[in-house]
Amino acid sequence: MINKEQISLWFQSLQLDIIKQLELTDGRGKFTFDDWQRPEGGGGKSSVIENGDIIEKGGVNYSAVFGPTPDFLIKSNATLAGSNFYATGVSIVLHPHNPMIPIIHMNVRYFEAGNNVFWFGGGIDLTPHYVDEKDAHFFHQTLKNACEKHDKNYYDQYKKWADDYFYIPHRKETRGIGGIFFDHLTGDKLKLFEFVKTIGNTFAPTYTKLMKQNQHLPFSENEKQWQYLRRGRYAEFNLVYDKGTKFGLETNGRTESILMSLPPRVEWHYNHIPAAGSREAQTLNLLKKGIDWVIKTEVVEKN
Amino acid sequence: MINKEQISLWFQSLQLDIIKQLELTDGRGKFTFDDWQRPEGGGGKSSVIENGDIIEKGGVNYSAVFGPTPDFLIKSNATLAGSNFYATGVSIVLHPHNPMIPIIHMNVRYFEAGNNVFWFGGGIDLTPHYVDEKDAHFFHQTLKNACEKHDKNYYDQYKKWADDYFYIPHRKETRGIGGIFFDHLTGDKLKLFEFVKTIGNTFAPTYTKLMKQNQHLPFSENEKQWQYLRRGRYAEFNLVYDKGTKFGLETNGRTESILMSLPPRVEWHYNHIPAAGSREAQTLNLLKKGIDWVIKTEVVEKN
Repeated sequence: MINKEQISLWFQSLQLDIIKQLELTDGRGKFTFDDWQRPEGGGGKSSVIENGDIIEKGGVNYSAVFGPTPDFLIKSNATLAGSNFYATGVSIVLHPHNPMIPIIHMNVRYFEAGNNVFWFGGGIDLTPHYVDEKDAHFFHQTLKNACEKHDKNYYDQYKKWADDYFYIPHRKETRGIGGIFFDHLTGDKLKLFEFVKTIGNTFAPTYTKLMKQNQHLPFSENEKQWQYLRRGRYAEFNLVYDKGTKFGLETNGRTESILMSLPPRVEWHYNHIPAAGSREAQTLNLLKKGIDWVIKTEVVEKN
Repeated sequence: MINKEQISLWFQSLQLDIIKQLELTDGRGKFTFDDWQRPEGGGGKSSVIENGDIIEKGGVNYSAVFGPTPDFLIKSNATLAGSNFYATGVSIVLHPHNPMIPIIHMNVRYFEAGNNVFWFGGGIDLTPHYVDEKDAHFFHQTLKNACEKHDKNYYDQYKKWADDYFYIPHRKETRGIGGIFFDHLTGDKLKLFEFVKTIGNTFAPTYTKLMKQNQHLPFSENEKQWQYLRRGRYAEFNLVYDKGTKFGLETNGRTESILMSLPPRVEWHYNHIPAAGSREAQTLNLLKKGIDWVIKTEVVEKN
C-alpha cells in the first residue's frame, strides 16, 4: 500500500520536473527557492519565477504539513478528535507577459487524518485574456484524454465541478474557460493516486505547448490594458472566493507562498464595458458555465 | 424627531458638497454620475472620478436602500421578523496619483429596521504610501477635535476601533495610520446624527488640505513602485476583510459601485522587503496598532 511519505515524495519530484520544463521553455527565467517551516509541523518549498522571457510572474509550490487535526475538521467528523493530520501537495499559478498566452493554475493534493480518513483533491484551469477556441479545445481535449485513462466519467464530472468552482458570482463570469476540479476523492488509494499523477504529469507538456505556440503572437498596448483588467478579475476570485487562499490566510499559512498566485500588475477601471463585437466582448461572452469545449471546436472546424 | 428621509437627504447633500470641494481642489477631474435602482427597493447615485490632476481614481457614492429585513439580521434579532429595513449612507475612497498624498476612505451610514431598531455607523481612515508624521498628527488631531465637539470619550474609543478594524492579519500590518471607526451607535438619534454630520463635514476640508499641501512633492519611479505595492495591500484588505465590501458582494449589490474602492493600478511582487533604514521600511514600522498620533508628533516637535 502507498503511504503519505511516498505521495509527498512524488509531489516533490513533480515540483522539480515542472520547474525544469518551464525553465527550459521560458529560456531566461529561473525559479528561486524558499524553504519554510510550519511551527506546528512540516513546511514547504516555495519556488517563484519573476521576469522570465515568457512568464512574468508565477510560482510552483510544494508543501507537506502535519500536526493535530484542526478543530474545523473535527466538527465535520467527530471520529477525528485527538487525531493527527497530514496534507501535502503542489500548487501552481503562472502569469505570462504576452496577453495571448493564458494564465494557468494547477493544484494536486493529498490529505489524511486519523487512521482511516484520506482524500485527494486538485484541478487545472486555464484563464485566457482572449479566448482562442482552438486553444480551449486543445486544453479540454487533453484533460479529457488524461481523465479517460482512469475513468470515463471523470472528465464530465470534474469539468462541471470546475465550471461551478472557478466562478465569480459578483461578475457573473467564470474565471476563464475552466478545466477540471475535484475534491475529497476517496476509495481505492492507489488508483486515485495514479489519476492524480496523470493530472500532475499533464500540466507541463500542456502549458509549455501554449507558451511556445503563442509567445510570438503580436499584441498592442490596448491588449495589455485588457490583460491588466482580466488579471483584476483573477485577483478578485483568489482573494474573495478561492478556498485554498482563504484557508491559508485564516490558518496563519505562509502569506507570500499563498499570495504568489496574485498577478504582477493589475488595473481596475470603473465600469469598463468592451465595444460590441470586439475581441474583448467576444471573450466575455465565452466566460460562461456549461460550454462544451471538446465538441464546440470540432463543430467549428467541420464548418 | 428626525426621520430616515431627512437623514438620507442630508447624506445626499453631503455627497454633492464633497464632490464640489474635491473638483475645485483637483482642478481638472470631473465626477461622472450613475444612478442605479435596487430591484428589491431603493437605489443610489454612484459618482466616480478618473484621471484628475491630483486624484487618479476614486468614488463618492450615495445610496438609500430598503425592503424586507434580510434573514441574517433577523437571526440576531428575532423581533425584526417580518419587518422592513432602510439603510442609507455615503461611502468614499480616493486614490491620488502622487504617492506622497495618502489614500483616504470615509463612510457614514444610518440603518433602521422594524419600529425601534436603528443605528449609525461610519469612519474615516488614512492610508499614506509614506507615513509623514506631521500629516498623521494633523489628521488625528482634526478627528479628535471633531469628536470632542460631541463626546470627550469618542476619539479614544473610535480611534482604537479603527486600529482593530483596519488591520490586515495575514500581513501583520494596519492598512494605514487608522483614524476613527464606529458602528451600531444607538441612543439619542438627534445627538448621534449631529456627530455623524460633524464627521461627514470634516472630510472635505481635511483631505483637500492634504491634496493641496502634498500635490507638488517630488517622487521617483521607485516611489511609484512602492505606491503600487501598498495599493496591493489596500486591495487585499478590501477584498478579504472589509465588511462593507463582503456584505455588498454577498447580497448582490451593485458590483461596480462596491469595487470603486479598488486602486487604478496595483502590483504584487514576491516577498518584497524594503532595505533597512529606507523610507519604505520606516513606513512599515509605523503600520501598527496603538500609535498615539496626537501625542507622538507633539513630542517630536518639542525635541
